Amino acid sequence: MSTKAVVLLSGGMDSATCCYEARAAGHAIYALTVNYGQRAQRELQAAKDIANAVGAVQHIVYSMDLTLWGGSALTDQAISIPTVGVDESQIPVTYVPARNTVLLSLALSWAEVLNAGAIYIGVNSRDYSGYPDCRPEFIAAYQQMVNLATKATVEGASIRIETPLQYLSKVDIAKRALALNVPLDLTWSCYTDGPEPCGVCDSCRLRDEALRAAHAGE
Amino acid sequence: MSTKAVVLLSGGMDSATCCYEARAAGHAIYALTVNYGQRAQRELQAAKDIANAVGAVQHIVYSMDLTLWGGSALTDQAISIPTVGVDESQIPVTYVPARNTVLLSLALSWAEVLNAGAIYIGVNSRDYSGYPDCRPEFIAAYQQMVNLATKATVEGASIRIETPLQYLSKVDIAKRALALNVPLDLTWSCYTDGPEPCGVCDSCRLRDEALRAAHAGE
Repeated sequence: MSTKAVVLLSGGMDSATCCYEARAAGHAIYALTVNYGQRAQRELQAAKDIANAVGAVQHIVYSMDLTLWGGSALTDQAISIPTVGVDESQIPVTYVPARNTVLLSLALSWAEVLNAGAIYIGVNSRDYSGYPDCRPEFIAAYQQMVNLATKATVEGASIRIETPLQYLSKVDIAKRALALNVPLDLTWSCYTDGPEPCGVCDSCRLRDEALRAAHAGE
Repeated sequence: MSTKAVVLLSGGMDSATCCYEARAAGHAIYALTVNYGQRAQRELQAAKDIANAVGAVQHIVYSMDLTLWGGSALTDQAISIPTVGVDESQIPVTYVPARNTVLLSLALSWAEVLNAGAIYIGVNSRDYSGYPDCRPEFIAAYQQMVNLATKATVEGASIRIETPLQYLSKVDIAKRALALNVPLDLTWSCYTDGPEPCGVCDSCRLRDEALRAAHAGE
């Protein structure tokens, strides 16, 4: 039996790998990409390419403007993208206020209409523990809320928030991507907007180091 | 001290009363109206008029299309608006999938950027118990999630979900509206789209009966 899953697909390595994990688990894929005004518009094309490659039944690119109130280096041109490395004692300025809460809520709305049994999100708390809305305790609280939030769940259906990358290191994610034949050449992880990845933002550096290590079999 | 509050303001009697409750509690009002593709575009003008009347510091009309995946009589032209009365054993077809989850999540994002201490939402579970995302147990679960979701709350700030209408009957809400001098002539509760309220949809009938009873002092 193939159950439907809504997969939040940004177009980066993590969400692409998450999408392939959902397919490997036997789900029919309904990919949701939110264009919330992030700088890396190049991500949107990557998401389309990956949705196509994974054989998604449907891919929605949803436009909603989170730049209206700013508050993040990803959505506010007045805050610069950090390139100096991850300070694990602080929440990075690339944090977008309540982003995952908003993304999951949109996914929930679509999942309910589709009668989907799962929502996949590529959050990871190990190498990037700074984001509060990537932590397992946040996901657990979100799940509790979901169980009370919708007509579907109140009437007995299950909509599970699935986070297959939650406890993986970035190197382990890269290894999963290679094992699942994720088309990494189609993904876009850079915080800036091409034509080529900058190679110096935190996201580029973490990805490059992880892929190097994964290819080396470390 | 005046703390900021984000108030979800649809333009109907309930959200307008909720907005005046927030002002009465001493908050500076940041009103948020979401144009999610509901039929009653007339609501949007009502929301603007009420935000102006209450003296909101800022009013954002946020466009996001929840008609994309439909699933409700309010967002899907293929489902007709019921006029036959409220069947309390069933969730009405006017339920919009995960709507309050989505609205609260947007409000949360703005609240975090504003450093607001509260989010007001005019949910009510007494006369309209059909909507799962209007119930106190949903709000409590949402609050738990909020406490883990944002940089602000994780770092010790409080963002309270305030639901002053939660346990009021529709007549009690009408009485509060009269006591707080809510400009009811500016509000729009009808599910359809004017120029005058239809008077026969569930929302019109509940409002009209409540106001009649409140004026009569019942």
